[in-house]
Amino acid sequence: MIHEAYQLHKQDQERLLAKKNQIDPSFYNGVMTRYLYPVLTKDHVPIEWRFTLDQATNPYFMERLGINSVFNAGSLYFHGEYYLMARVEGTDRKSFFALAKSPNGIDQFRFVGEPIMWNCPDPEETNVYDMRLTLHEDGYIYGLFCSEAKDPTSPPDDTVSAIARVGVLRTKDLVHFERLPNLVTPGVQERNVALHPEFVKGKYLLYTRPQDGFIETGSGGGIAIGFTDSMEKGVIKEEILIAKKRYHTIYELKNGIGPAPIKTRNGWIHFAHGVRNTAAGLRYVLYLFVTALSDPTQIIAQPSGYLLAPYQEERIGDVSNVLFTNGVIVNEKEEVFLYYAASDTRLHVATTTISKLLDYAFHSPKEAFNSFDCVQQRLTIIQENEHSLKQSKK
Amino acid sequence: MIHEAYQLHKQDQERLLAKKNQIDPSFYNGVMTRYLYPVLTKDHVPIEWRFTLDQATNPYFMERLGINSVFNAGSLYFHGEYYLMARVEGTDRKSFFALAKSPNGIDQFRFVGEPIMWNCPDPEETNVYDMRLTLHEDGYIYGLFCSEAKDPTSPPDDTVSAIARVGVLRTKDLVHFERLPNLVTPGVQERNVALHPEFVKGKYLLYTRPQDGFIETGSGGGIAIGFTDSMEKGVIKEEILIAKKRYHTIYELKNGIGPAPIKTRNGWIHFAHGVRNTAAGLRYVLYLFVTALSDPTQIIAQPSGYLLAPYQEERIGDVSNVLFTNGVIVNEKEEVFLYYAASDTRLHVATTTISKLLDYAFHSPKEAFNSFDCVQQRLTIIQENEHSLKQSKK
Repeated sequence: MIHEAYQLHKQDQERLLAKKNQIDPSFYNGVMTRYLYPVLTKDHVPIEWRFTLDQATNPYFMERLGINSVFNAGSLYFHGEYYLMARVEGTDRKSFFALAKSPNGIDQFRFVGEPIMWNCPDPEETNVYDMRLTLHEDGYIYGLFCSEAKDPTSPPDDTVSAIARVGVLRTKDLVHFERLPNLVTPGVQERNVALHPEFVKGKYLLYTRPQDGFIETGSGGGIAIGFTDSMEKGVIKEEILIAKKRYHTIYELKNGIGPAPIKTRNGWIHFAHGVRNTAAGLRYVLYLFVTALSDPTQIIAQPSGYLLAPYQEERIGDVSNVLFTNGVIVNEKEEVFLYYAASDTRLHVATTTISKLLDYAFHSPKEAFNSFDCVQQRLTIIQENEHSLKQSKK
Repeated sequence: MIHEAYQLHKQDQERLLAKKNQIDPSFYNGVMTRYLYPVLTKDHVPIEWRFTLDQATNPYFMERLGINSVFNAGSLYFHGEYYLMARVEGTDRKSFFALAKSPNGIDQFRFVGEPIMWNCPDPEETNVYDMRLTLHEDGYIYGLFCSEAKDPTSPPDDTVSAIARVGVLRTKDLVHFERLPNLVTPGVQERNVALHPEFVKGKYLLYTRPQDGFIETGSGGGIAIGFTDSMEKGVIKEEILIAKKRYHTIYELKNGIGPAPIKTRNGWIHFAHGVRNTAAGLRYVLYLFVTALSDPTQIIAQPSGYLLAPYQEERIGDVSNVLFTNGVIVNEKEEVFLYYAASDTRLHVATTTISKLLDYAFHSPKEAFNSFDCVQQRLTIIQENEHSLKQSKK
């Protein structure tokens, strides 16, 4: 017999799932629109995935396999619906992937089907997370994710050191997933890898983030690109750094690509995260750059600083002070839906349009790299405005 | 003359002390019930412990010796009342112990008597904290706490390195406290030590947490047990690890016992803390395991993951992202009152029953240690539920 508490909790959850999102009127930067409610949280995960429902075996209606958080989601606009491939983390700290979809991209996201499973387990793999989805022109949807294992070179009593590699899934229907061999790359650690949606000179192009250590990027690092002839046995022989870390920037300590880039008339728009250190740990913010259509290794526009940073409640979570994206959707109206996680705990949406993003990318000041020149940039704006205001009074 | 502001502040505090607690309706896991208000905060500390009241010497009614926080409390059910041995931290960073009691365990806690003092100062001891209370079958109530001193082997200009040892107080009445010599243990650092309430083979059994460094556990570590013939000159010669740290778990970096265990018909229930690292510092969560009545070194049940993690406002405090317990009470109705501190700042209660804890302990999935097997666990639950739902529709 089904426990009588089930319907009660089900109704509570239905109210959450049906809740309309609203624009957050307190935030304005002219580029992105923020929303009041997260689009996915742990409370969105189906009750049937957490509780056993049978009163006989679960008399207290206990959560038998809890959920800690739902965050860093890949995304795909597919058959007119907005799909998120969420990172779902259990109370046991293990992450897995699950699909949720919405009719409008800003609310009513519901998990569909079951947690994603694949055909071929990797016995060394301990945790999986942060999938980027790309519908490639070869016809497949690829999901690239972080496949993490204990560092085999670390001593047995080292319970922390890990190796992050690039796991690859592919599908044509978002129902059946085939696991391909992990991508082989020159970097010791590889996270934040995304697949470019088009062939470049007949090869698959990947954005990578080579890194020396698991948490620290070490001496190397930055956003790189590499090529592979095949995704079925992907091998990147060389990584070319296109966006380096740099002293006293928002990407001083680490940076990494977000989702696969968006193709526009003026270039490929990239979202990326930048990381700096603070006395309270690392701070993750989101920035944007554009690469040339003719040459995806060339950055042709990059506004200074960040586009989005943790805001209000977003600041707090399991890993506070983190805003991170690995999913963006553009619909047929060139509306843009950016899915970003707040503090490794829940997933939010921010919206804009391609036109706004291009305006932001090409008409914002560039990094000036020191306070003196930054003041000059600001004085230029102030003086222009004084002039405009005077003109307007004439 | 008493300052006129005193009565005003006293009335304010009386309102706080009399405030009824309420179940937090936003939290549900079927095991623990959370409450909206902390049971002890710095505002619960008597005004007379902080302000001098004489208008002549304190014309501005200033707090002369402030309180920063009240947290990590040991606990004891004693003569039908709920006692907490709180860690009270002054604005000077020094902690001390003070007793508070309540008639019902969930609200109306009041500090009683004066801050705890003992007969014999240790000249090297700098700070004391985190007392575990045990009413032992030898007739004494023991309080084991962390006794911290500057590391004598560190260079003079090292102002951080410390040594944590095990202080011991005992009492029969919670009024008169006798300080016994610090426990001698093989570990360089010992915190999170609790005394088992019964003799085992005629000896005192203690739960310990040997550790190499003061903040980091180093290569060793985990929850251990040791035996001593006497508590008056306690010496543990050997520590046997019963719960090791393990890669990519909630207790990856550190774990340690909470309060002394609860005896039940099916085993000894233990609450423990697990610690992992994040980009924003350490994260402390609470988990549960059960040891055999016949052999307290044998873990016979341990659900995967955590039972409680920092929630909502609890996430933020002097040391954010910490949920920690060293006190639990079981009353004659087998109701359980777990006292946990949030972010090293204030003390909360969560309630449950022995029956629920045993159901949770013995009927939850165990750690699967990798994402693939965790998804299998979850698919099993989902498929069972599909079956139950089908049956219920027949």
